[in-house]
Amino acid sequence: MQPENNSMEFSCPFKVYLEDTDAGGIVYHANYLKFMERGRTEFLTSIGFPKPALLDGGLLLVVHSMNIQFRSPAKLGDCLQVGTKLNKLARTYVNFLQNVSADGSDSQLLCEAEVKIACVDGNTLKPSALPKSLRLALGDG
Amino acid sequence: MQPENNSMEFSCPFKVYLEDTDAGGIVYHANYLKFMERGRTEFLTSIGFPKPALLDGGLLLVVHSMNIQFRSPAKLGDCLQVGTKLNKLARTYVNFLQNVSADGSDSQLLCEAEVKIACVDGNTLKPSALPKSLRLALGDG
Amino acid sequence: MQPENNSMEFSCPFKVYLEDTDAGGIVYHANYLKFMERGRTEFLTSIGFPKPALLDGGLLLVVHSMNIQFRSPAKLGDCLQVGTKLNKLARTYVNFLQNVSADGSDSQLLCEAEVKIACVDGNTLKPSALPKSLRLALGDG
Amino acid sequence: MQPENNSMEFSCPFKVYLEDTDAGGIVYHANYLKFMERGRTEFLTSIGFPKPALLDGGLLLVVHSMNIQFRSPAKLGDCLQVGTKLNKLARTYVNFLQNVSADGSDSQLLCEAEVKIACVDGNTLKPSALPKSLRLALGDG
Repeated sequence: MQPENNSMEFSCPFKVYLEDTDAGGIVYHANYLKFMERGRTEFLTSIGFPKPALLDGGLLLVVHSMNIQFRSPAKLGDCLQVGTKLNKLARTYVNFLQNVSADGSDSQLLCEAEVKIACVDGNTLKPSALPKSLRLALGDG
Repeated sequence: MQPENNSMEFSCPFKVYLEDTDAGGIVYHANYLKFMERGRTEFLTSIGFPKPALLDGGLLLVVHSMNIQFRSPAKLGDCLQVGTKLNKLARTYVNFLQNVSADGSDSQLLCEAEVKIACVDGNTLKPSALPKSLRLALGDG
Repeated sequence: MQPENNSMEFSCPFKVYLEDTDAGGIVYHANYLKFMERGRTEFLTSIGFPKPALLDGGLLLVVHSMNIQFRSPAKLGDCLQVGTKLNKLARTYVNFLQNVSADGSDSQLLCEAEVKIACVDGNTLKPSALPKSLRLALGDG
Repeated sequence: MQPENNSMEFSCPFKVYLEDTDAGGIVYHANYLKFMERGRTEFLTSIGFPKPALLDGGLLLVVHSMNIQFRSPAKLGDCLQVGTKLNKLARTYVNFLQNVSADGSDSQLLCEAEVKIACVDGNTLKPSALPKSLRLALGDG
């Protein structure tokens, strides 16, 4: 059930506003997870799923686990690129590789993560198969 | 429909963590609204309504409007007191006067607001009468 | 010291992501203040001040007070327009009128506010005159 | 440089407010990182370091990396316990094992993580040795 097109990738820009920073003068660490979630949302929107957190049929996509490295800090006013790459597609979950980079000539890597997104039933919160339409859009075939 | 006990008041403490601050080295202004919302929640919990945002019967309490003055900034590690005072009780809304003060010998006022909380139907988001049990708990009688 | 061009206005788009919502299924009220702060930042960036929260010379622009009405809720995936209009320019502060609207054919007004932004010294946090360059860029003269 | 007392542990309670939830009706995943950061702060406060993000001498403690599993979701109004256990103490970093549990008779595990906290110079953001006083307080000796 691996996607045939296993280089499925997406990138989109976001800017660092005051809300994202902390008293250390840099982006608060948990806020990189927000940038990554926005990046996954834009990726899934681009293939036809504009509200991935709330799928049709009462299914939710939730973050199951993350392994994240904070390499270098972003600062107020920085323009960031969030990259999202499909890494593995399974029956009830999707793995993404994501990174946040400074948007500029150097494209310095700021943060990278492996993210496992699980499909669950919105009522029971138990694992559920990903919708077939989403698996197809992600290249399962 | 004014409460007979119009001095109904409540105070509770919260601490400033790194998540609350911004690159200016002080609490990010919008985060005082979070402290105030926690304060209203604890007030309403103390009179029997532990999840005021999601009332029984599909009703929601939502913020209708706020008039807020930021007097002096809080900083990382500060201990705050959030005061909540019932100001007006009407059929479909409640007005509170709230303040955030530094918790210490000086009790410096940091922030104060008048907050109008409306009851709405969770489906239509149209105004709805406050539940009678809540009006009674707020002193209506 | 009123700006000659008192219709100085700016509008920019933002999208509602999962991070912005709450368990009521709508945007958490304090997060409209984040959208408005992004809007003011883009306005000031457009006239040459890309990091208005941290001005040169150790000055900070901080929110002094807001009078905000929440008219109608935004939801997950909504595209918003944040409007920012210069309302008054004084020696140590600027007043803006801001609104958040749904981005679409109806342009429904969701939230509006009058916001007073004060200039303070970053060390003492006492009021300070706005930098002359900023006053000029805002039409003073 | 391993601590002799390698069972150094700390636990503290936090409550889930509306600000912590998202439109899925559960705590937004990135907000567990905030609860964990609060837990580390309370742990380090208990041993004499009340503002660990901003240490004396211009040093910052920053999150270097996390491996986090989201087991089960917390909901609005839940009372949580955040556990923090010293796992490894090195010259320039500290590793913690952390968990977030429902505070109740069942103490259900909701989230757990391994967190590497690095000491960096606040100006250069380069790795720096942890202050000796902090290493001693963490049991190094």
